Amino acid sequence: MKLRFTKMHGLGNDFVVLDGVRQSVQLDAELLRRLGHRNFGIGFDQLLLVEPSDTAGVDFRYRIFNADGSEVGQCGNGARCFARFVHEQGLTDKTEIAVQTARGVIYPRLEQGGNVTVDMGVPRVAPAEIPFVAAEEQLNYPLDVAGHLYDISVVSMGNPHAVQVVDDVESYPVGKLGPLIEHHPRFPERVNAGFMQIVGRDEIRLRVFERGAGETLACGTGACAAVVVGIRRGLLDPGVLVHTHGGDLTIRWAGEGQPVLMTGPTATVFEGTIEL
Amino acid sequence: MKLRFTKMHGLGNDFVVLDGVRQSVQLDAELLRRLGHRNFGIGFDQLLLVEPSDTAGVDFRYRIFNADGSEVGQCGNGARCFARFVHEQGLTDKTEIAVQTARGVIYPRLEQGGNVTVDMGVPRVAPAEIPFVAAEEQLNYPLDVAGHLYDISVVSMGNPHAVQVVDDVESYPVGKLGPLIEHHPRFPERVNAGFMQIVGRDEIRLRVFERGAGETLACGTGACAAVVVGIRRGLLDPGVLVHTHGGDLTIRWAGEGQPVLMTGPTATVFEGTIEL
Repeated sequence: MKLRFTKMHGLGNDFVVLDGVRQSVQLDAELLRRLGHRNFGIGFDQLLLVEPSDTAGVDFRYRIFNADGSEVGQCGNGARCFARFVHEQGLTDKTEIAVQTARGVIYPRLEQGGNVTVDMGVPRVAPAEIPFVAAEEQLNYPLDVAGHLYDISVVSMGNPHAVQVVDDVESYPVGKLGPLIEHHPRFPERVNAGFMQIVGRDEIRLRVFERGAGETLACGTGACAAVVVGIRRGLLDPGVLVHTHGGDLTIRWAGEGQPVLMTGPTATVFEGTIEL
Repeated sequence: MKLRFTKMHGLGNDFVVLDGVRQSVQLDAELLRRLGHRNFGIGFDQLLLVEPSDTAGVDFRYRIFNADGSEVGQCGNGARCFARFVHEQGLTDKTEIAVQTARGVIYPRLEQGGNVTVDMGVPRVAPAEIPFVAAEEQLNYPLDVAGHLYDISVVSMGNPHAVQVVDDVESYPVGKLGPLIEHHPRFPERVNAGFMQIVGRDEIRLRVFERGAGETLACGTGACAAVVVGIRRGLLDPGVLVHTHGGDLTIRWAGEGQPVLMTGPTATVFEGTIEL
């Protein structure tokens, strides 16, 4: 049988998107591995499967898979590509789309020029919710890494982040320090390590060493975590432009108890057909 | 404009193949970089452009490009994919196809089951033709690498190879020794470093550390070079099955002055359309 797919990316985080509304798609770990291989298959960071919803008020459901067959709960770059995909494919003409994910219903909103805004949820900072080993909750913590103390803040955006402010993010030894923070014993489930340079009250540069993946071109939840930390520390205003190696995101956060809104670009790269 | 393409691979060496016969294709370095990027574009090891020939007796011409925009003279895996492509696309019904490459006309031949045989040319072993710094031509040479002597033979298959016989290729430190041989001062244009385990007189296991690329899944010219070395040293018969991490090749060589024939598999992965 022939499977139609669309290749997309958000800030270089790349996706194979499958229309499971107009074609029947049966995925298993072996097929995901085959499709995900960049030499022997199509290649992707994650695969998005769009399916019809059977819930009133919900337009679609979608699931996110890694190439190793595991399922992902949340992916900001993927949610943006999903919203553009259902529009381009003519599956809906709504600009705010209700979609059921593994972590609940989200409402990505299509903006001008292919940009999409996604509600990334309410950030959590209590140590137990990260999880992070600490006697009490603080705004920032000294973290002992190989005998040096680093000043970090911790945030959960559904996944754990340890963010620090640095003077010059481009020359910072992210590749060396990232894995030491990721595997630090005070993060029992490991952590994403973010490095943020404050350019102004509404602009930062960011690099993220992702848990299990190393440094990536752009990390959506990492951008949210960094801006939340900057606002809580009084360094940033509620709307911030975030420069990453993959491109720019805009992050908005109104403060404690409020959700983080992420606006960013999407791109459709090509359409394909593969024989299964 | 829309560009149609086919994604193929030979032993995991993957190609975007463009039909330049039925569509007009204008390639430049910027477009190659864009198409070649595995996150932002389609992704490939090399791009093959198939074009009509204006020479009598020649069916097609084709050119091979790297994602950095540079042009490649010869690629055995690419030649096999080319032959399958022109058949599957209905561009010819010949089984032996005359095709003009940057290095002259070659005649890939379609076999059963998607296998293709390619004439890889006559091997050269004179030191000046590798190039390799040596006082006189020998069957093998002691090569001093970091104070240890390695017993290597040198072959040019249009590109330079240094081949050695090892007891157990899987446990051999290819990643450590490969770059030291690649950059050894006796190879002024650097070299591909091959490591061959003799399984029997008609069967070897092979790993190749490729010049400028590191260890790859399979190297067609490396398989030819290894079998030529094994036959010249009296260790192998004229037809040899070569196991690589990407799959199996069969190499045939009738001896001095004769061309090397390589038979191996091809696979069409998917068809795509990209908006330029």
